[in-house]
Amino acid sequence: MNTYKAINLVKRPQPGPITEEIFDVVEKELPPVGDNEILIKQTHMSLDPAMFGWMSPDTESYIPPVELGSVMRSSGVGQVVESNHPDFAVGDRVMGMMGWQEYALSNGQGINKVEADVPDETVLSVFALPGLTATQGLFNVGKPQQGETLVVTGAAGSVGSIVGQLAKAEGLTVIGVVGSDEKANWIVNELGFDGAINYKEGDLHDQLTKLTPDGIDLYFENTGGPIQHLVFERMNAHGRVVVCGMIADYGKQVPDPGPNWIPIIKKRLTIQGFTMPDHFDEIPSLLAKLTPYVMEGQVKYRAHVLEGLESAIDGLNLFFTGGNQGKLMVKL
Amino acid sequence: MNTYKAINLVKRPQPGPITEEIFDVVEKELPPVGDNEILIKQTHMSLDPAMFGWMSPDTESYIPPVELGSVMRSSGVGQVVESNHPDFAVGDRVMGMMGWQEYALSNGQGINKVEADVPDETVLSVFALPGLTATQGLFNVGKPQQGETLVVTGAAGSVGSIVGQLAKAEGLTVIGVVGSDEKANWIVNELGFDGAINYKEGDLHDQLTKLTPDGIDLYFENTGGPIQHLVFERMNAHGRVVVCGMIADYGKQVPDPGPNWIPIIKKRLTIQGFTMPDHFDEIPSLLAKLTPYVMEGQVKYRAHVLEGLESAIDGLNLFFTGGNQGKLMVKL
Repeated sequence: MNTYKAINLVKRPQPGPITEEIFDVVEKELPPVGDNEILIKQTHMSLDPAMFGWMSPDTESYIPPVELGSVMRSSGVGQVVESNHPDFAVGDRVMGMMGWQEYALSNGQGINKVEADVPDETVLSVFALPGLTATQGLFNVGKPQQGETLVVTGAAGSVGSIVGQLAKAEGLTVIGVVGSDEKANWIVNELGFDGAINYKEGDLHDQLTKLTPDGIDLYFENTGGPIQHLVFERMNAHGRVVVCGMIADYGKQVPDPGPNWIPIIKKRLTIQGFTMPDHFDEIPSLLAKLTPYVMEGQVKYRAHVLEGLESAIDGLNLFFTGGNQGKLMVKL
Repeated sequence: MNTYKAINLVKRPQPGPITEEIFDVVEKELPPVGDNEILIKQTHMSLDPAMFGWMSPDTESYIPPVELGSVMRSSGVGQVVESNHPDFAVGDRVMGMMGWQEYALSNGQGINKVEADVPDETVLSVFALPGLTATQGLFNVGKPQQGETLVVTGAAGSVGSIVGQLAKAEGLTVIGVVGSDEKANWIVNELGFDGAINYKEGDLHDQLTKLTPDGIDLYFENTGGPIQHLVFERMNAHGRVVVCGMIADYGKQVPDPGPNWIPIIKKRLTIQGFTMPDHFDEIPSLLAKLTPYVMEGQVKYRAHVLEGLESAIDGLNLFFTGGNQGKLMVKL
């Protein structure tokens, strides 16, 4: 086989669902592998909400947008099939930014070897972007303290589910906000969350009040949406808000307004946004922090696996509908 | 003279202007001065926007509300006229929380001696709550860096005017938002701000864009109001927002919504609220930081002096109308 498939981004997405026409599926020749380069055969590639930011033309975003005409950006896991690089051998399992393509040529930058004996699905679900993001956001930004109450939105999502489990392991009371009863059951009965709110059902204010009788110390925001104002109102003095995602607003032409700032003064709150590209050089220390929790079985996950490269395109829309069940990825 | 006047808070304020009926002006007997106590004759008392929080029944606020039936809380400057306290002598000039009254009995807690040879008006305008708040907020929360651009709202106010001058002294570009052309002239021509915006005039977006060609790194928020959204949109990556006051919203039954949180992620912003009561034990170090700027003449101020205890009541409404010109205080 001398050719492989790749998907290029050719147009910027419009507000609303992602459509096929913004992508171009192409057949490419396998490239020659130069000095200090490796060729990776990708086995699983990750779909993440951050991709909406990467596709957007907004030059103020945290990393440059994907250039039109180039391969769509994504992280993945795969096997080294050819190596002229001293740090990598044929057969090594690696993870890193590989793009929407079956093979990736790399100089090794940003590519990390995966030594842990876990399935590919675990690598992408726990050790890759979701776990690193959860670890950075919860520990380094949120600074959780035993006995505190955490509310996490998108709690059945790839990041939120790990945030909640790490917080439980640290002795916090953890309430998750999700979009279906099935997800609510999963995070409470399988992941051990203390409570769940399906934001599509019932009186949210009542549910939140009942589940957080001592108020909220730490708010890990993955979604935005109307629940944001309710959670914000229940923040305790010196509470921290970690802003990691706003998926409910990414597709909107006019994003919903946020909460008034008076509580920021009254409660002396800190609201902090972060994105992983600022912390890529901290990946080794983040992995060192995360790995023991995983190896002790404290981080369960659910992978939602799509089949075949092209399934990535429509797969992105599962983030808008909340139709994904667990970490979304594509098996190649 | 064995009696003195004091003003008690007897009702909680309603939204809108402050009315006389929530206060009671009383005549009291001078109290006996016990062991380790001092009697202070107050000469100037300070009016501050924080008072709206202190009067409010909101038990979630940062310090307990003033109890109904007790003297209205305020800071002031005065002279020790009787002392049974080892740390204070008759004739000492002191500042601290003294309340709306002509004489204050104190055990010395929270009362600091003022050694600097400056007028009473300077003490209240610069060394008391406004200067301490500006110093804490700008340096310890905002972490200004030379060459950055700061926007401060309420820039002609007691805190904002000091924030801007300290930031100028640190080598930042400083733009102030004010409510009149007269104030705009004052902060630019007298205080040395790089630019001013009268939020009541012209196209705010255009003015802000012109005055902050390199975006905004540091946003010191004293007011809230519509300009908040415009400033927020121009924040640079890793920008910091110091939330110190929201005077535009304190009187509203339904406060205006804040900005959407997407920029918090995209720009990795930190938004942090603070109030001075959390930092009262840091007053010595804050004064040590502030004093050299004052003594080198880098902090100018304007005092707006009302006459007589009762003038305090209607004086509070100057915060809503923006009618105060400089630090508001009452001469007793």
